[in-house]
Amino acid sequence: MGGDLKHLVIVKFKEGVVVEDLKKGLEKLASEIEAVKSFEWGEDMKSEEMLRQGFTHIISMTFGSAEDFTGFLGHPSHIEFSATFSTAIEKILVFDFPTVVVKASA
Amino acid sequence: MGGDLKHLVIVKFKEGVVVEDLKKGLEKLASEIEAVKSFEWGEDMKSEEMLRQGFTHIISMTFGSAEDFTGFLGHPSHIEFSATFSTAIEKILVFDFPTVVVKASA
Repeated sequence: MGGDLKHLVIVKFKEGVVVEDLKKGLEKLASEIEAVKSFEWGEDMKSEEMLRQGFTHIISMTFGSAEDFTGFLGHPSHIEFSATFSTAIEKILVFDFPTVVVKASA
Repeated sequence: MGGDLKHLVIVKFKEGVVVEDLKKGLEKLASEIEAVKSFEWGEDMKSEEMLRQGFTHIISMTFGSAEDFTGFLGHPSHIEFSATFSTAIEKILVFDFPTVVVKASA
């Protein structure tokens, strides 16, 4: 698992956005593009509002190499999805980083 | 893997903080407390400054159940570490959410 790159996106959607449709789009994207090694999402329900500052959804994708990640960013499906996705967003944070796994799931 | 809870912490440290020491503390914490199922961290180097808003470090812990997570929060080692950690932080975001794994690593 060492050497993986993580693409972590944290968003607050605009009011009225149908999040379910975007999730479907993301799932399609992750399954279509082979370079996406793993994909998880989550909806924050538990942390204190003060600590999450209005952000609600977490999208986490893993790539096996920098080349895979670059390929993903430039993939026509990603470019198309990003255009739709960006219109739905009130605010966003993006982090791209090599993951350092200290303790792995058994 | 379904049913896991994720504890995601995103921070910007104060200037002058020795991040290496905090990492060691986190590693110790994750290895000491059995309830921590997996632990990863990362340092953002790649995303655009505008998109990461000054945050630099990502800490991600996974727990197998809500009970494990609650046990972790109340664990003396976690309480002690949190006291140190909080003095080192300029800003922080915390997300706690059930992970939905759409595509798992092969």
